[in-house]
Amino acid sequence: MNSPGCVKRRLGRAVKQRRQEIGISQEVLAERAGLHRTYIGDIERGARNLSLENIEKLAKALQISISDLFANYGVD
Amino acid sequence: MNSPGCVKRRLGRAVKQRRQEIGISQEVLAERAGLHRTYIGDIERGARNLSLENIEKLAKALQISISDLFANYGVD
Repeated sequence: MNSPGCVKRRLGRAVKQRRQEIGISQEVLAERAGLHRTYIGDIERGARNLSLENIEKLAKALQISISDLFANYGVD
Repeated sequence: MNSPGCVKRRLGRAVKQRRQEIGISQEVLAERAGLHRTYIGDIERGARNLSLENIEKLAKALQISISDLFANYGVD
C-alpha cells in the first residue's frame, strides 16, 4: 500500500528516512551524490520531480538499490 | 548486478520487455500512461531521462510497482 501523498512526497520521506538511518547530513548526501545541498532539501520536502539519473545518484549515495529504496521505505 | 548500459538504457529495456510480456503495443501503453507514443519509443530506446512522475505513470500502465520493474527487469 502506498504511503500518503504524491510520489514526490513519498520519495522525499524515503530519502530523509534512509539518510537518517545511515547517519549522514544533507550536506554529506549532497556531496556524495554530486548534487547541491539545497536540492537535497527540496527533494526531502517533496518539492522536486527528480529525474531517473538523479534518482540513481541519490540511491548510490544512500548505499541502496533504487528498488529497495522504493519497496522498503514506502514509495511504492 | 546491473544490466549493461546507463540507467536510461536499462529502464528502456525493462519497459519494452514488460510491455511485450503483458502484450500491449507502444500505442496502448502511451494511452494508458497518458504519454505520447513517440515519447514511449524514445524511452524504450534509452533516449529519455524521464521524471519520477512519469516513471510512476509508466509503472501503473505496465501494472507493476516501480520497485518490481527495477528489481525484476534488470534496471537495478
